[in-house]
Amino acid sequence: MTLKESWLLPEGIDELMPEEAAQLERMHRLLVDRMQSWGYQLVVPPLVEYLDSLLTGTAKTLDLQTFKLIDQLSGRLLGIRADMTPQVARIAAHRLRDNSDVLRLCYIGSVLHTLPAGQASSRNPIQLGAEIYGHAGPESDMESIQLMVELLKISGVAGSISLDIGHVGIYRGLADFAQLDDEQEQALFSAMQRKALPEIESLLSSYAINEPARKMLVALSELNGDVKVLDKAKQILKDAPESVLQALETLNMLAEMSQQRLSGIQLNFDLAELRGYHYHTGVVFAAYQSSSAQAIALGGRYDDIGQDFGHAQPATGFSLDLKKLVTSFPKPREKRQLISATWSSDQSQLDLVESLREQGNIVVFALPGSTINTEKTLIQQDGRWQVVDTGNNTRG
Amino acid sequence: MTLKESWLLPEGIDELMPEEAAQLERMHRLLVDRMQSWGYQLVVPPLVEYLDSLLTGTAKTLDLQTFKLIDQLSGRLLGIRADMTPQVARIAAHRLRDNSDVLRLCYIGSVLHTLPAGQASSRNPIQLGAEIYGHAGPESDMESIQLMVELLKISGVAGSISLDIGHVGIYRGLADFAQLDDEQEQALFSAMQRKALPEIESLLSSYAINEPARKMLVALSELNGDVKVLDKAKQILKDAPESVLQALETLNMLAEMSQQRLSGIQLNFDLAELRGYHYHTGVVFAAYQSSSAQAIALGGRYDDIGQDFGHAQPATGFSLDLKKLVTSFPKPREKRQLISATWSSDQSQLDLVESLREQGNIVVFALPGSTINTEKTLIQQDGRWQVVDTGNNTRG
Repeated sequence: MTLKESWLLPEGIDELMPEEAAQLERMHRLLVDRMQSWGYQLVVPPLVEYLDSLLTGTAKTLDLQTFKLIDQLSGRLLGIRADMTPQVARIAAHRLRDNSDVLRLCYIGSVLHTLPAGQASSRNPIQLGAEIYGHAGPESDMESIQLMVELLKISGVAGSISLDIGHVGIYRGLADFAQLDDEQEQALFSAMQRKALPEIESLLSSYAINEPARKMLVALSELNGDVKVLDKAKQILKDAPESVLQALETLNMLAEMSQQRLSGIQLNFDLAELRGYHYHTGVVFAAYQSSSAQAIALGGRYDDIGQDFGHAQPATGFSLDLKKLVTSFPKPREKRQLISATWSSDQSQLDLVESLREQGNIVVFALPGSTINTEKTLIQQDGRWQVVDTGNNTRG
Repeated sequence: MTLKESWLLPEGIDELMPEEAAQLERMHRLLVDRMQSWGYQLVVPPLVEYLDSLLTGTAKTLDLQTFKLIDQLSGRLLGIRADMTPQVARIAAHRLRDNSDVLRLCYIGSVLHTLPAGQASSRNPIQLGAEIYGHAGPESDMESIQLMVELLKISGVAGSISLDIGHVGIYRGLADFAQLDDEQEQALFSAMQRKALPEIESLLSSYAINEPARKMLVALSELNGDVKVLDKAKQILKDAPESVLQALETLNMLAEMSQQRLSGIQLNFDLAELRGYHYHTGVVFAAYQSSSAQAIALGGRYDDIGQDFGHAQPATGFSLDLKKLVTSFPKPREKRQLISATWSSDQSQLDLVESLREQGNIVVFALPGSTINTEKTLIQQDGRWQVVDTGNNTRG
């Protein structure tokens, strides 16, 4: 390995240098504070778990994204978490409720992916998320969406975001109604995800299914737009099974609550939105920045996961990658004052350094033989130590 | 896998539930603030790197502690960091200096060990550390020790800690002087680490070495105690080579500076302290809590590492595991007020909730159909929303 190579990081793996790291730290604090003020309790799941636990109740895609390790102690397979949501669901399932039948948890930590999730995606995101367990109504979906939007506002991207909202129960209900077999459903699902209308039409006309189901499935991929789409859907899907009508009603309730709780945010209802279809069970949502096709925050309902941990309960939540937001996060208005001090054994200087640091200043000792270039420095004048300007203009 | 098993974590892997997680979060903030106020800049190295980079210039023990992965993208071996210090040294070596010839960096993050480092040790510590690059004198060692002690004070363990200080140059110089071959040095090193005096004596009498060297090496394992040990050492090691005398002088200077800068901390000078011998090049130090034989924080000088990254420079620093300190970290004096609010579409209630949260309160919505038990709640009285006592006594 050459010297140059020893500096290189693997593709899709990145690290943060001081300026970005300081921004990440500020962001971390503000976002965790906000989640806590909404009643979400922080938990810290481990970096690795037995692979079985990590993948319990999750989709095959997560399996392929997960790095595997052999545990020398047990001889069993470990996985490095590729997503913290299943870990937090496990914690929620085996923890006792305290003062409510609803449990709110939040988390922040590094995750690792075997391959980038998309073009130019990081393989080592810093995932932050919040989850509500124990409530099945649209209000908890609303709260999740609202908190997600709040965090994006704090992160400095609120001005430019739009929200996609869907409900996997709509496609699922129609596919049931059409009595598609697994293979058919899978093929249609794939075309639907790509919104490939000609392929959808051709697939559906090749299946022996009832005409109303066929019509509704074809229409689905075009039910995409602002709140008016929901009215249109009510017409087009009026003969759909009860579960589909209920899903539509949930979206209607969300649309109504959003007028007040998400005012100023552009909403897009997408009835063929199937992200996380094998994992999600209800409302799904994603936030996009106008400049990019990649979601900056994702969430949805996943009522079935707790079951696999022995405690069936409704669940909804969202997560985002802090590193994607770090460049848009507003810089602090004031720079912290950087003061240099000579290395001394004068107790009055040491005491002043201590108190300046406690007041929020940065005081750096100029170690003997080294030079340091700051705007302020400590000197002894008229028998006492004081902060004076050096005349240098440097970073703060 | 049974349900019960899906809850189990691998041996030595642990997670933090809400109460401990909240303490960890508070600790993280206070300790990072303190390091920043001393002029240390935060960096965020990645969870994985190419194994070669991760182990550059480090000891064999770190190799065995490191989990290996195959990178699907490059086909190369990756390692999950078992220690962040070499990562930060790599960053320090390839980054440009800004306003000083001395660079101070700090970091916090999860690391992973293949096997527990000691009995009952965690395999997933949360490592926090601070490093100084570019200064070779005892003042930078002093600053490292002092900052380490400050962080331990904040963590609530200052009352009960003692510090072990040594210098690997003493044993190294004497072994050179005795012209031990590699095998002999290794055998003696092993006995020395265990402070197995009879074994040390028997090994030394079996080697064909000069008498002064033999005497000094035998004496070394007993040069252990308070500052008076340094005077004793000056006598016993007076015929030692220059490098040993210099190392002793460095310890003397540290002892002197410590009187002022570490007042109240119990110091123990251990001239046979060989922790990190293959990695460290000068002063080594460790903090112990009276109750345990396992160090709670460790550090030392490692001047040679930058060389492997193409930028030779002196370096000294320390690190600790936040999780070991989380139970001793002082609980906040005041509980945050927990207020419940009914789910409503009344804008004046939503506005009040927002402002209460901004004032540092926790406001939790009682989602329709769920119950919540708090000491305070929001009710509408005389036409306006206000916070009232519920008469319940719960957690805060």
